[in-house]
Amino acid sequence: MTKLTISGKALPGMPWEDRPAGCNAPLWRYSANPVIPRNLLPDSNSIFNSAVVPFRDGFAGVFRCDDTNRRMTLHAGFSKDGMHWDINPNTIQFEGADPEVGQWVYGYDPRVAFIEDRYWVTWCNGYHGPTIGIAWTQDFKTFYQVENAFLPYNRNGVLFPRKIGGKFAMLSRPSDTGHTAFGDIFYSESPDMEFWGHHRHVMAPAPFEVSAWQCMKIGAGPVPIETSEGWLLFHHGVLHSCNGYVYSFGSALLDLDQPWKVLARSGPYLISPQMPYECMGDVPNVCFPCAALHDPETGRIAVYYGCADTVTGLAFGYIPEIIEFTKRTSIV
Amino acid sequence: MTKLTISGKALPGMPWEDRPAGCNAPLWRYSANPVIPRNLLPDSNSIFNSAVVPFRDGFAGVFRCDDTNRRMTLHAGFSKDGMHWDINPNTIQFEGADPEVGQWVYGYDPRVAFIEDRYWVTWCNGYHGPTIGIAWTQDFKTFYQVENAFLPYNRNGVLFPRKIGGKFAMLSRPSDTGHTAFGDIFYSESPDMEFWGHHRHVMAPAPFEVSAWQCMKIGAGPVPIETSEGWLLFHHGVLHSCNGYVYSFGSALLDLDQPWKVLARSGPYLISPQMPYECMGDVPNVCFPCAALHDPETGRIAVYYGCADTVTGLAFGYIPEIIEFTKRTSIV
Amino acid sequence: MTKLTISGKALPGMPWEDRPAGCNAPLWRYSANPVIPRNLLPDSNSIFNSAVVPFRDGFAGVFRCDDTNRRMTLHAGFSKDGMHWDINPNTIQFEGADPEVGQWVYGYDPRVAFIEDRYWVTWCNGYHGPTIGIAWTQDFKTFYQVENAFLPYNRNGVLFPRKIGGKFAMLSRPSDTGHTAFGDIFYSESPDMEFWGHHRHVMAPAPFEVSAWQCMKIGAGPVPIETSEGWLLFHHGVLHSCNGYVYSFGSALLDLDQPWKVLARSGPYLISPQMPYECMGDVPNVCFPCAALHDPETGRIAVYYGCADTVTGLAFGYIPEIIEFTKRTSIV
Amino acid sequence: MTKLTISGKALPGMPWEDRPAGCNAPLWRYSANPVIPRNLLPDSNSIFNSAVVPFRDGFAGVFRCDDTNRRMTLHAGFSKDGMHWDINPNTIQFEGADPEVGQWVYGYDPRVAFIEDRYWVTWCNGYHGPTIGIAWTQDFKTFYQVENAFLPYNRNGVLFPRKIGGKFAMLSRPSDTGHTAFGDIFYSESPDMEFWGHHRHVMAPAPFEVSAWQCMKIGAGPVPIETSEGWLLFHHGVLHSCNGYVYSFGSALLDLDQPWKVLARSGPYLISPQMPYECMGDVPNVCFPCAALHDPETGRIAVYYGCADTVTGLAFGYIPEIIEFTKRTSIV
Amino acid sequence: MTKLTISGKALPGMPWEDRPAGCNAPLWRYSANPVIPRNLLPDSNSIFNSAVVPFRDGFAGVFRCDDTNRRMTLHAGFSKDGMHWDINPNTIQFEGADPEVGQWVYGYDPRVAFIEDRYWVTWCNGYHGPTIGIAWTQDFKTFYQVENAFLPYNRNGVLFPRKIGGKFAMLSRPSDTGHTAFGDIFYSESPDMEFWGHHRHVMAPAPFEVSAWQCMKIGAGPVPIETSEGWLLFHHGVLHSCNGYVYSFGSALLDLDQPWKVLARSGPYLISPQMPYECMGDVPNVCFPCAALHDPETGRIAVYYGCADTVTGLAFGYIPEIIEFTKRTSIV
Amino acid sequence: MTKLTISGKALPGMPWEDRPAGCNAPLWRYSANPVIPRNLLPDSNSIFNSAVVPFRDGFAGVFRCDDTNRRMTLHAGFSKDGMHWDINPNTIQFEGADPEVGQWVYGYDPRVAFIEDRYWVTWCNGYHGPTIGIAWTQDFKTFYQVENAFLPYNRNGVLFPRKIGGKFAMLSRPSDTGHTAFGDIFYSESPDMEFWGHHRHVMAPAPFEVSAWQCMKIGAGPVPIETSEGWLLFHHGVLHSCNGYVYSFGSALLDLDQPWKVLARSGPYLISPQMPYECMGDVPNVCFPCAALHDPETGRIAVYYGCADTVTGLAFGYIPEIIEFTKRTSIV
Repeated sequence: MTKLTISGKALPGMPWEDRPAGCNAPLWRYSANPVIPRNLLPDSNSIFNSAVVPFRDGFAGVFRCDDTNRRMTLHAGFSKDGMHWDINPNTIQFEGADPEVGQWVYGYDPRVAFIEDRYWVTWCNGYHGPTIGIAWTQDFKTFYQVENAFLPYNRNGVLFPRKIGGKFAMLSRPSDTGHTAFGDIFYSESPDMEFWGHHRHVMAPAPFEVSAWQCMKIGAGPVPIETSEGWLLFHHGVLHSCNGYVYSFGSALLDLDQPWKVLARSGPYLISPQMPYECMGDVPNVCFPCAALHDPETGRIAVYYGCADTVTGLAFGYIPEIIEFTKRTSIV
Repeated sequence: MTKLTISGKALPGMPWEDRPAGCNAPLWRYSANPVIPRNLLPDSNSIFNSAVVPFRDGFAGVFRCDDTNRRMTLHAGFSKDGMHWDINPNTIQFEGADPEVGQWVYGYDPRVAFIEDRYWVTWCNGYHGPTIGIAWTQDFKTFYQVENAFLPYNRNGVLFPRKIGGKFAMLSRPSDTGHTAFGDIFYSESPDMEFWGHHRHVMAPAPFEVSAWQCMKIGAGPVPIETSEGWLLFHHGVLHSCNGYVYSFGSALLDLDQPWKVLARSGPYLISPQMPYECMGDVPNVCFPCAALHDPETGRIAVYYGCADTVTGLAFGYIPEIIEFTKRTSIV
Repeated sequence: MTKLTISGKALPGMPWEDRPAGCNAPLWRYSANPVIPRNLLPDSNSIFNSAVVPFRDGFAGVFRCDDTNRRMTLHAGFSKDGMHWDINPNTIQFEGADPEVGQWVYGYDPRVAFIEDRYWVTWCNGYHGPTIGIAWTQDFKTFYQVENAFLPYNRNGVLFPRKIGGKFAMLSRPSDTGHTAFGDIFYSESPDMEFWGHHRHVMAPAPFEVSAWQCMKIGAGPVPIETSEGWLLFHHGVLHSCNGYVYSFGSALLDLDQPWKVLARSGPYLISPQMPYECMGDVPNVCFPCAALHDPETGRIAVYYGCADTVTGLAFGYIPEIIEFTKRTSIV
Repeated sequence: MTKLTISGKALPGMPWEDRPAGCNAPLWRYSANPVIPRNLLPDSNSIFNSAVVPFRDGFAGVFRCDDTNRRMTLHAGFSKDGMHWDINPNTIQFEGADPEVGQWVYGYDPRVAFIEDRYWVTWCNGYHGPTIGIAWTQDFKTFYQVENAFLPYNRNGVLFPRKIGGKFAMLSRPSDTGHTAFGDIFYSESPDMEFWGHHRHVMAPAPFEVSAWQCMKIGAGPVPIETSEGWLLFHHGVLHSCNGYVYSFGSALLDLDQPWKVLARSGPYLISPQMPYECMGDVPNVCFPCAALHDPETGRIAVYYGCADTVTGLAFGYIPEIIEFTKRTSIV
Repeated sequence: MTKLTISGKALPGMPWEDRPAGCNAPLWRYSANPVIPRNLLPDSNSIFNSAVVPFRDGFAGVFRCDDTNRRMTLHAGFSKDGMHWDINPNTIQFEGADPEVGQWVYGYDPRVAFIEDRYWVTWCNGYHGPTIGIAWTQDFKTFYQVENAFLPYNRNGVLFPRKIGGKFAMLSRPSDTGHTAFGDIFYSESPDMEFWGHHRHVMAPAPFEVSAWQCMKIGAGPVPIETSEGWLLFHHGVLHSCNGYVYSFGSALLDLDQPWKVLARSGPYLISPQMPYECMGDVPNVCFPCAALHDPETGRIAVYYGCADTVTGLAFGYIPEIIEFTKRTSIV
Repeated sequence: MTKLTISGKALPGMPWEDRPAGCNAPLWRYSANPVIPRNLLPDSNSIFNSAVVPFRDGFAGVFRCDDTNRRMTLHAGFSKDGMHWDINPNTIQFEGADPEVGQWVYGYDPRVAFIEDRYWVTWCNGYHGPTIGIAWTQDFKTFYQVENAFLPYNRNGVLFPRKIGGKFAMLSRPSDTGHTAFGDIFYSESPDMEFWGHHRHVMAPAPFEVSAWQCMKIGAGPVPIETSEGWLLFHHGVLHSCNGYVYSFGSALLDLDQPWKVLARSGPYLISPQMPYECMGDVPNVCFPCAALHDPETGRIAVYYGCADTVTGLAFGYIPEIIEFTKRTSIV
């Protein structure tokens, strides 16, 4: 691990809080969680499962802000420190799409990946069922929507931050029309962000005797981080107890060139719902990561995750430690 | 709205607490919630989904007090201020019904409407399945039961506080034998509180893209309040998350003469489960209103609602504001 | 049984075929079944679960004729002998109802009862879910629709052929919105065919150890026949095998004055799906009686029953034998 | 309709049988059905849901022949007259695919489309769930497999017989992992048979009050036929009775240039399960078309459809009549 | 296979019919099937899933004869030729059991094994759910019931015809309270037919890609036959189509001393529902073997199997061929 | 009750805390609950549903410690005071079993009974599904595993602390493969801890009108305590709300010689989920007792119960009061 390299630009101003005394977990919660409360907007019911990225001298993001009708909508936001956010109370108006595709139905669980010269947003987009919507922006003010990547029914579409083998690459989790009780992660490629193919299976849920928290369905979380050990992926996993779904998250390492090949996958979770703001809310027992900031110099990472489908939490760690943890506990 | 008139007798002594600073919601919670704890009776497991009315110089009510067998039973109670209640530890013994109908099986979620000269109690009554039981009282000591209004399976039977078109009128929500996953509000008429007919459809659940908190089933809450803008109805709505049902409530305005015609219906909820006593309990994430007190002079209203099927909460607001909110956010 | 009396007018011209040699069952099938084929109308997909009555010098009826869109519609028909039918290819147009109720959605499984001076038709009527529609006719040409009897969700509404205790009386089977997996028979009264009440429980499904063919749900079939031993009711019963629902039918005797009191109920079925036209069709394994003709003089009865939701069958028997069978095998 | 033109090469030797006397349906069954029995191969359990095309001086096809393990496999076959088939007892060995995709798991319900210079086979292909496999052949001996078109879970992938707007075009029906209880038809495009996009919604199931046989799910059948009135599509529809799924089929006309726009759609079915070989078998009550032969000169068409998931049936008609029927009964 | 030895006493008078011309299946149906009709008893609804054994100079058996209440009951029967049966219309009265266990609730799917000096009957016995009842007889007139072998919920208890390792041995299939959607075969031992233990797993359902007819649940059929190649077991398997369960049966070879070790297991079925009397009846698409007669000299075997839960069928074959088939097609 | 005798050795050092002022419940919670936190082990996710017994001069136990893979494992632990525990971070390695049975899959919800000269551990043991594993120890260091008691699928196997009628005796709750929605308590006997039989039904869930908290399924909790009034059994019961299962527990008295005969059974629960650590956690709303310590001299009892499947709670009471409560509120 001494030679570990981590891609990405330096981010010394990223959010951070040192590991608490007595803690030896690879990821620890921000002591002032939730970092974003449910009612940051005047009529927001909840703000969670959202995406942030470095932007100019600070940060920007695309936020899932359900309103008090409990409609799922996307909003742009800005922050100097990644902790205090100024979220636009108006929903994002996407431009440029074919009207049939661009007609808004609902959108949720966005991710944002910076590739080459622009920020690509992917989200679960309503088009006769949930599928993966795509748009891009350069200023987080104007967003240009392109074609949906896949046929319904799909969720958790997450782009890689660079082309692989000359093609755009996306992870996604095919699903069904409801509270899907199954879910594997797949990989797809596109020459142009318009047509997609070369679909490959990446990971299935684990056998419950091996790793029960990820035994019913799994899905990709934040945009993967490139390291010399492979792509570092955080993924959520779901266990179905007699009282509903429990969402936790762990980590995996994917092959750099053939990312559908899993090099390592943590047996233990990194974070599972244990705090009141994770156990109580609109959907109890949910920890759902959608974005991460990291600083390659220090190896620091800050993971943003939705808590109980209600608020947004933040957790911190060191990438080298997480990679070591992933390999040491791997169930592959 | 300047000419808004509200029916009902003056109720200056009704429970009240001013809107908290910084709050601009049309309904706000009582700061000392839950106003009725789960163990007010020696062997009560929970006290919730109950009905209160002005009575003599104070208030009376019919309370759902589940015992520690978790049997659902009804109790009478009295209060000077609507906050501190003296609930009879013995269950109500209904008199006068045909023995086949009067044999007690279970009863829950009562409502009380004062019509002309007496208090009519309606509740979900066990008779080969849940249906709507009816009884009347003048003193909250002796209760006279009459025939069940409808065939099973029905819940949430709520009387209007006066005859409409010369007939008694009731809202109800036909259901099934279990945790019903559907539910519309219907309207029915009776010349005599004995035979019912002229059934009309009032409201269906909303499309989830429009108002998700009321997209699986809905049901009438407190006895409607007559205003010059129509009958003001609070109704609960249910969303089915992957972790169960979530009960919130909003408001609607019904035509005064043809109450099955909906004039307005709030898209946002008024109250959704957000406080620990609403999110934690025998059934987490339930806010279920069954009664309201109001003072026509000031426009004040106090809504009693069951919290997590465990305790009783209280929320306050101004009727004119609620009517304005209902019309402004209407999804009709 | 020697003094058994059977109500009804003489019907010497009713359909009939003698009991086959070697058969000792109380009910036997017509050898030329199905008596009505699926495609009697040019565009009918199926004709079944229909109601016939004596009319003038022959017979008339209301028929469920699903078309090749598989829409459920009602048609009037006429016959000289009860075997060969002339069914009007146009659907019945009901008149006179409040437009909200009279707007046609779907209608199926009609029954026809002659009471006093007119023929009353009841059927499963679509009004925000299935409920019991009511109409009357005197000539089977013009039909006047009145209010629906009950709130949804209900099916199998069957009138008694005379007032009981001065009131109209109906059996029905409250249900849910889909392929209801439960079902008891209830009794209701009305002073005027407009408002209904005095609901009483009649019969529940039988324990499967006692009579499995009627262990999941039951429903009334033809209009009950008055006899000195009580109202003779044929009722269908449903068993849920691993391959779906199986509909058979048996018989019961109800108290003349309090028809919700069951005097006897056959443990064995009278007819269960055994013939190819009962086992094969749009819904395999269905025998569903909706009408019967009888001649009080001879005690003969002819039962019309839907076969596999596709065609109409006919079965014959003697009322005194059926009553004896019902009492001898009773599971009450 | 006088100027109706139908694409395709003349096919005077196609299978044919005149309309039976007294029949006025737009499609009628072959009197010697099933045209292919279940045990044509020594160890076949069933042969159904198969695809045939004109080939050289006769016909060729790709057949779903489940073996007595009830494994789903694909076989090539040849015929002089389209009635008597010589099916290769060995399964097709696909060549050329990436080993990850080319590893055989299962394959069923093939369609074959001739485009430009080769025959393209699409089928439901097992790859971590059902998706759409693609291969091509020029001689029905050697088959070259390419990438799967879509992510799982998908079924009923049907190619158009020519490029549209310069791109290959496919209909498909996204589904789930089991006996999918929903299903719309979607349209997708590809520049190269490798990457797919521009997904558009074509048709949803019909409301059951409008056309019940197609109210639960629908899927494309044979390769669409180009006519001056639009693409003629046969599509199956499913109704869910209390005893399972019932598969019938009807017809639709799609816009020539924007095939996701439905010009007409038959309310009635063309064929529903009514014959013993359609009602009895491994899956009762299934009529499932996968291929059609037609002769533009005469307008004749022969539709091959799976019967009860067991054998193959054949039905005949005239394209002009079917188009007229589709437009006359349209529910669009 | 030349040295194959088969245990059992010579049975030259067993039922037999030669293989039909052109048939090369290892098992073929009796041309006069069903060998036992549904109404052999005056009030039987169905006779199926029954057990026959050589007895004195002919045959005896225990029969599942459901009556027209569709109660499941057991009857003794006798036959000279195994084809024509004289079944006692009275149900078997079991003697000797502790009253708590001996109180009859229901019983079905019997098997009979001759061990040492008596015939042991096992069946699915109702005792607060289905479990395995045991009784013995020496004359098929008096039956002595002992303790139930296992706790509920269990079905398909089948004894081996001799002690193994000094202990009685039984196969069974643990299940649940309803139409169990899972099912493995287990092995258990008893020193005394009273206490049972040493439970071992024998076989699970097959992956559906490997052998779909046995992919949902499996269960032992007739009493295993001892051969030098191992215990020959016929077992039913179930596939769950969208239209219900399909029961077929195949064969397996178990280790003589450690019968929980499977030596071979047929991938193809031997018999699947294909004839009208197998596809049509109270439960369509069921072939369910419960007994077999064999003659070690000739290797002939006659398998009795329930058809559509309605009648009893008979199939013939040669044990050496079946063993060869089992080994050749084995999926172990 | 004055002559009540309680078996067991004196245990003056058992955990204890006096009844709080104002409390009159028969069981009250430890004020410092949870007595065992979820993370007592370095990598434990949760510690609950565990068994403790007096051991030498203190206490020992077998603990369910799920790790952060959420694998279910068993650990030995020791304590001086029953409050502060030293749990071995390594899982118990069972010795001596047949390898087929001894191969570890998963194990949970242990109970420990001291019988004659050793401690017997029973637990839910994974062997092709959940069943009852058995092992014994004399020092809580070396554990010897014997055969599983029963076939799958079974849970909550609880031994009596002495032979009854000369045989070992066990309660258990047959179940299915998942979140079993039914469950009765049964009784079984064994001469040797190897073979089991004489199965008897003990208790079914209560009708929900009678005692709803135990209306869906029930299961034995701690090892029964012998008293002159019968075996004192604590049993959990489950109610299925629209938001999942709720586990409470109550008490019963079983006949000393025929423990399948229930002498009394509490209608009210003793403890239901009401505290945050019972309502919030991996499975909200669970109180699940698995062990109790008692002192016959003082009648004191300390019940250990799992809370929310996350932590371990402790509750105190007096056995004579609990017996009186059980008899007074009995629903038998």
